Amino acid sequence: MDLHIRCNRTAASLLKALSIVLAVVPALAAPMSAQPSTDMKALIDDLVAANRILYRQGVVDGFGHVSVRHPTKPDRFLLSAAKAPGRVTAEDIMEFDLDGKPIDRRDRPIYSERFIHSEVYKARRDVNAVIHSHSPTVIPFSVTQVPLRPVHNTASFLAPEVPVFEMRKAAGMTNNLVTDGARGKALVEVLGDRPVALLRGHGNVVVGPDVRRTVARAIYTEVNARMLLQAVALGGPITFIDPEENRLIEAGRGTQITGHSVDRVWQMWLEEASRAEPAR
Amino acid sequence: MDLHIRCNRTAASLLKALSIVLAVVPALAAPMSAQPSTDMKALIDDLVAANRILYRQGVVDGFGHVSVRHPTKPDRFLLSAAKAPGRVTAEDIMEFDLDGKPIDRRDRPIYSERFIHSEVYKARRDVNAVIHSHSPTVIPFSVTQVPLRPVHNTASFLAPEVPVFEMRKAAGMTNNLVTDGARGKALVEVLGDRPVALLRGHGNVVVGPDVRRTVARAIYTEVNARMLLQAVALGGPITFIDPEENRLIEAGRGTQITGHSVDRVWQMWLEEASRAEPAR
Amino acid sequence: MDLHIRCNRTAASLLKALSIVLAVVPALAAPMSAQPSTDMKALIDDLVAANRILYRQGVVDGFGHVSVRHPTKPDRFLLSAAKAPGRVTAEDIMEFDLDGKPIDRRDRPIYSERFIHSEVYKARRDVNAVIHSHSPTVIPFSVTQVPLRPVHNTASFLAPEVPVFEMRKAAGMTNNLVTDGARGKALVEVLGDRPVALLRGHGNVVVGPDVRRTVARAIYTEVNARMLLQAVALGGPITFIDPEENRLIEAGRGTQITGHSVDRVWQMWLEEASRAEPAR
Amino acid sequence: MDLHIRCNRTAASLLKALSIVLAVVPALAAPMSAQPSTDMKALIDDLVAANRILYRQGVVDGFGHVSVRHPTKPDRFLLSAAKAPGRVTAEDIMEFDLDGKPIDRRDRPIYSERFIHSEVYKARRDVNAVIHSHSPTVIPFSVTQVPLRPVHNTASFLAPEVPVFEMRKAAGMTNNLVTDGARGKALVEVLGDRPVALLRGHGNVVVGPDVRRTVARAIYTEVNARMLLQAVALGGPITFIDPEENRLIEAGRGTQITGHSVDRVWQMWLEEASRAEPAR
Repeated sequence: MDLHIRCNRTAASLLKALSIVLAVVPALAAPMSAQPSTDMKALIDDLVAANRILYRQGVVDGFGHVSVRHPTKPDRFLLSAAKAPGRVTAEDIMEFDLDGKPIDRRDRPIYSERFIHSEVYKARRDVNAVIHSHSPTVIPFSVTQVPLRPVHNTASFLAPEVPVFEMRKAAGMTNNLVTDGARGKALVEVLGDRPVALLRGHGNVVVGPDVRRTVARAIYTEVNARMLLQAVALGGPITFIDPEENRLIEAGRGTQITGHSVDRVWQMWLEEASRAEPAR
Repeated sequence: MDLHIRCNRTAASLLKALSIVLAVVPALAAPMSAQPSTDMKALIDDLVAANRILYRQGVVDGFGHVSVRHPTKPDRFLLSAAKAPGRVTAEDIMEFDLDGKPIDRRDRPIYSERFIHSEVYKARRDVNAVIHSHSPTVIPFSVTQVPLRPVHNTASFLAPEVPVFEMRKAAGMTNNLVTDGARGKALVEVLGDRPVALLRGHGNVVVGPDVRRTVARAIYTEVNARMLLQAVALGGPITFIDPEENRLIEAGRGTQITGHSVDRVWQMWLEEASRAEPAR
Repeated sequence: MDLHIRCNRTAASLLKALSIVLAVVPALAAPMSAQPSTDMKALIDDLVAANRILYRQGVVDGFGHVSVRHPTKPDRFLLSAAKAPGRVTAEDIMEFDLDGKPIDRRDRPIYSERFIHSEVYKARRDVNAVIHSHSPTVIPFSVTQVPLRPVHNTASFLAPEVPVFEMRKAAGMTNNLVTDGARGKALVEVLGDRPVALLRGHGNVVVGPDVRRTVARAIYTEVNARMLLQAVALGGPITFIDPEENRLIEAGRGTQITGHSVDRVWQMWLEEASRAEPAR
Repeated sequence: MDLHIRCNRTAASLLKALSIVLAVVPALAAPMSAQPSTDMKALIDDLVAANRILYRQGVVDGFGHVSVRHPTKPDRFLLSAAKAPGRVTAEDIMEFDLDGKPIDRRDRPIYSERFIHSEVYKARRDVNAVIHSHSPTVIPFSVTQVPLRPVHNTASFLAPEVPVFEMRKAAGMTNNLVTDGARGKALVEVLGDRPVALLRGHGNVVVGPDVRRTVARAIYTEVNARMLLQAVALGGPITFIDPEENRLIEAGRGTQITGHSVDRVWQMWLEEASRAEPAR
């Protein structure tokens, strides 16, 4: 009798400790296509997984957010209620219009910087996913004169270099947050048609054609920033990935077979996100 | 029969391994207000959680301590008996007066540097929580001529820059520890009305209006130190967060709705503290 | 009754979480010889373990691959189907010929850069294992003018310095990937008779007489790169491991008794790989 | 029935995964005195714990070793058989004489560099514990002209600076390993009466009056090396811990009460060592 009781107490503790595993289980069973899905449930599973993965990989901490464009209503996007990304579940996903207004808010808190997302979706028809983060090694590049440029194949999309948005130019002295549509619009103008822009003293915005590709871009932007920082410490000159090399790398993505590129890494990130929190 | 016995042995091992989870469970159930609480139990739960969180985030190791001002007796403060912060439980919390004397010591060991806390509470009526740490990336700034200044929004409270307390100026050659009231007073004079001061070759002191805000300040002081170190390595000039930007960021805290700012991150830190030790 | 059901739900969650442990269990029971084995099962166990270890030690992430020469057919080599190395199991191991053609592909995805392996095995009869990785701290040395040289005993094999393969010299502007035999051959020419070569903006190739020695070389190449980066940051001149010191270190390997050198560390790496994913 | 079987399979996996916990349990129950113990079992428990702690804190990886002088026979010392430190158990502890000869070898492998230990015990009657490690951030200081000096209270024992042993001066071109008594003696001459010496391109030796103090010195030597490296990166001049400050810090150790200093941290390190492997 005593044995069973002790076993049960352990089970209760474990259920708590392993709750993060259970939260990601639906995503682990999701189909592997990197194309935007019209299956709403699969899309939300990917969005929840994206939150967990970005947290586990150290791109976001308690702040930062990731959204996807609505698969059938292109003037809507899906974004979590205001919550630490590593704790987001499917129940937290809300729908917003392109003015950043929640469709069915109820009493849920919402991210004050959702205008980063709404303004990108308004201006960029090619974009189906948006990430805002305080990606730690990216920030030093936002406050110095050294441009963030690609030194590694996996971040070739940064070529030739990443622009920096300076809020003071757009709006003078502020709280340095993108808390309205005008500030979002000014940021998107600096982003232009690129995949990444930095926000001075704040973080970055990363965009892409689908949520998996965009998550990979956010992660490898951070990885590349670490490598470039070390290369600068070694002393120049530095050989960067050439824009033509990037063009050829990106061209290869359309023709590659299953198991290559982002899907291969996505499955690893999913497993990591289901097992542990970041080592920060 | 054999199956049950083996299960039970596993359960015993797990209970040991998961003891840290159980220690933090009361805190996980605590109310989420960032205001100083008059509920003594909730306050102690937050104080224990603060110890665990600072340990998990790498701000303290086996040394360092965190206190809160007594909610109803402003000339008293609560601080753990001398113990590694990551091992503190509610039973370890003791009451001290503003001369650093324990009210009911019994035979418990006490921190020799408790005068950092007592002198801050004496001089700063606006302060309800105090942290002393050996925050690792902060220390290089305490022994060089490069001032610690904010480069990131989340550490804007460091603007314009953090003062450094040099014990040799106050007391000549010593063991470089704040082991009496006179040394504590000299430190508090250097701190002035600021939220953070460094102790040369030793660590820092971080103060704030409540324990959650103060924990967040201690963590983001360390995060900002890492970013600034990298920015210096990239090479100047560096764009710092302006004091006016800080004023506007701080002004926003009073008006923000539930789910924003420190509470959002606190819940994440609590969960992390309940799962694992630091990755150091 | 209820107790048993909860215990069972926990057990199911744990089986999932601990699957990585079970995957490595055969390797944990493998014989400890560092010599190329003619026992196919033991060799595949080591190859699977090598994938897991390189992942756990942060040498590979979702990309990178490791192969061994076939023990009885020297014109064949064994390499996983295209998969993140940390997820490779014995069932994923495939056989390839020295033109990089799979012997029995079925519908499995294959690594596009398998020509790194095939061309090394073609040119280097002394080599029985090959690793390609994006070893993170190695990459900054591939894009600057600072040669990667050994500063630590455990990486003495890097003496006198590591050559860098520049794809642009061999093939002009490309996707910077070794996706055919001609590119592989050009890389192998730069490698010469050395154990390691860097690929500019991409990663490295590490070769050796057996899979355990080669894994150790890949790990200590990364460790040494971190140490050299820090030595450069401190400021020169730097005292490197002398080629004569390396010759004497390598000469000692043949005569050493059980428990020394790579086998001692291999058992530690195996245990680490069975417990957790990298802390990245 | 099925429920019980699944539970049992889980239990078996967990017993394996948690074996490290069980290995350290005796040490967790050991008495807390920092004085050399005449209780042989307690001493061996501390020595096993020292191996696990140094591994967990990243001071040693698969290489490195720690010994204690025999409590009743001062011309003997205790050291593990040749094994990765993180895997050492009480059964691995062997006895050696001051010529580095094992008293009862049987067929066990032994560390080739045990002469570091034997020669220190021969020359330094004040020393009761010796650690040799490849402490990673210490090594860059061994190959450059920047002396390792203390910038933090917890490493004040490094004052005024740490000497570097250059094997080439003592023995010309070698395998750079301390594999005989003559090399050990030359190293000990450079060490003199200090607590730490570096071995160029190799690692360090750390000595002390008991195993806990020596483990603390090894860990804080590594911590201080990281801080100094960052201070150098920020740019000088640097304020070091003064030898007089060190003298006053060390003087305080004799008078302090239970719960202070190394015992407080030792309990934390023990718990960490029982839970997980390093995050490397």
